Amino acid sequence: MKIIVDAFGGDNAPLEIIKGAVDAKNEYGVDILLVGAEETIRKVAADNQISLDGIAIHHAPGVFTNNDSPSAIRTKAMADTSLATGFRLLKEGEGDAFVSAGNSGAIGAGSMFIVKRIKGVKRVAFAPVIPTVSGKAMVIDSGINTDVRPAVLQQFAIMGSVYMNKVIGIKDPRVGLANVGTEEHKGDELRQETYKLLQNTPVNFVGNIEGRDVPLDGADVVVCDGFTGNMIIKTYEGVALALLGKIKGIFTKNLKNKIAAALVLGDMKAFKKEMDLDEFGGTAVLGCSKPVFKAHGNANAKTIKNAIRVCKDYVSADIIATVTDAMSKISEAEGGEA
Amino acid sequence: MKIIVDAFGGDNAPLEIIKGAVDAKNEYGVDILLVGAEETIRKVAADNQISLDGIAIHHAPGVFTNNDSPSAIRTKAMADTSLATGFRLLKEGEGDAFVSAGNSGAIGAGSMFIVKRIKGVKRVAFAPVIPTVSGKAMVIDSGINTDVRPAVLQQFAIMGSVYMNKVIGIKDPRVGLANVGTEEHKGDELRQETYKLLQNTPVNFVGNIEGRDVPLDGADVVVCDGFTGNMIIKTYEGVALALLGKIKGIFTKNLKNKIAAALVLGDMKAFKKEMDLDEFGGTAVLGCSKPVFKAHGNANAKTIKNAIRVCKDYVSADIIATVTDAMSKISEAEGGEA
Repeated sequence: MKIIVDAFGGDNAPLEIIKGAVDAKNEYGVDILLVGAEETIRKVAADNQISLDGIAIHHAPGVFTNNDSPSAIRTKAMADTSLATGFRLLKEGEGDAFVSAGNSGAIGAGSMFIVKRIKGVKRVAFAPVIPTVSGKAMVIDSGINTDVRPAVLQQFAIMGSVYMNKVIGIKDPRVGLANVGTEEHKGDELRQETYKLLQNTPVNFVGNIEGRDVPLDGADVVVCDGFTGNMIIKTYEGVALALLGKIKGIFTKNLKNKIAAALVLGDMKAFKKEMDLDEFGGTAVLGCSKPVFKAHGNANAKTIKNAIRVCKDYVSADIIATVTDAMSKISEAEGGEA
Repeated sequence: MKIIVDAFGGDNAPLEIIKGAVDAKNEYGVDILLVGAEETIRKVAADNQISLDGIAIHHAPGVFTNNDSPSAIRTKAMADTSLATGFRLLKEGEGDAFVSAGNSGAIGAGSMFIVKRIKGVKRVAFAPVIPTVSGKAMVIDSGINTDVRPAVLQQFAIMGSVYMNKVIGIKDPRVGLANVGTEEHKGDELRQETYKLLQNTPVNFVGNIEGRDVPLDGADVVVCDGFTGNMIIKTYEGVALALLGKIKGIFTKNLKNKIAAALVLGDMKAFKKEMDLDEFGGTAVLGCSKPVFKAHGNANAKTIKNAIRVCKDYVSADIIATVTDAMSKISEAEGGEA
């Protein structure tokens, strides 16, 4: 299995990306194709005593920055960037999956317009898997589509269920519709219509889910528009950071508290790891016809390594064939009703 | 100052409501007018050794439940409920503010249609004040209006600024627009247009704010539609509950950890209190022409007591006159532009 990695995406590129890719090769036994300015990659690796033995490099001199407009990913002017080149290599079958920590909007656009969608899929979506109080949950979409229709949310429910089942291993994943209350009539027209549609969709729909119940494990797949999902994910991250920061403050306040910290050190470390979004690496781009994974913009080597591990599971689970199949069944059912 | 209290709102009514109201009278020196079935109130108080000395009661035999449709608050059939009666008493000047832990939607509707809006205000809004890593922030709206226009969000920014200044004591409150990125062009049409409008509004607009920065103290007033605000507030609550639950699990895991817990007990208690949404009591209904406060549905005596304290500050700060004044200035400015 070969994972294509954008060496020039994210705040810590290229050093942390190269490190993470090399670590993933060694740990997970995957082949790596690094994309970016070859000379710079070799120099950074040499300067940091990183061996590139067994790592392939595809030269792409340009860099797609966060200030570039996402839609520019398709333009000729940006074709030589590591991000656009990575997408092209994935499309041409030069690797099995593509990882980048670069411009989020451009990763959405590249998935949608260069690699293209799975047949029948209306929109691609960011679908991060986050820790909950007793497991993991996916929030789909969490950033690409601010404006959606019920049929789009229905597809998110299906794609999310397939991923949580095949990649995360949850049997019959519970699908919840993110809403401002649990009763069927709650929310705006989009939510009310989607509720009805999900009742007649072959997923394990458990009804509306409020923001409060996302971290409390109220559903395995939380379905929402990208604006709402982004708010859930980012608020989650901020509250976790704020609380962990406060606890750190308590544990370093004075000698007595430092002793307490020493006593629970191992458990607190395990807890922090459990809550660490870096452990989750970023988000798959669901609906794309080949596996694309967006790592956090501030990804470090660990984040990239984890992202590559998730890509490996994503490729192995062959969820794209399953989603393709599910989509054709849904469109048949729609045809049958019409 | 007299606070009208709905004795039959919320999961723990009437006992906890009566308790909290009596505690508030004793602690803050406010007069209380309890609304609800008088006989029941007197019996519950007697059964629990609560003295109702100095507490006024207005008999209203009906109860407005969470299953009742919010718009029914205006109907004749519901006129004898404690909730509808409380609104009517407030409107008629029988008290200075009204507190209820009852049906959220009905509290919004009662504020809007029975007590009525401040002149010039387009919509009333829930505007809870929540703890941040280094202070407090308001999220306005957090549940009433799922569908808004830029001019409505502009008013939320103004009302929120006045409240945070006059009630919470923040000088020149920073106003942030909840969005999926910080750059001006981010988000949907609503966000983009509101951004431009807020740049020309007499508030301290600091730009877009992502969910991540709400708990990290990125703004004092977070402006959003009610769907988004509800997601932020509820996710915040859920993550806090999940994390505090995990920490409790660590501290009770074994003897060693219990010793650690004992060492940091005082600091952890202070931290829990700081993060406790019950300390914040619920939310003011901003834009209403008289002070209305919605306490959490699961409010206990402490929540109600705190809600009454907030009401006292709300009445004392006389923010309604200030908001009325600000609204007339905005509409003059709009008139000038037209």
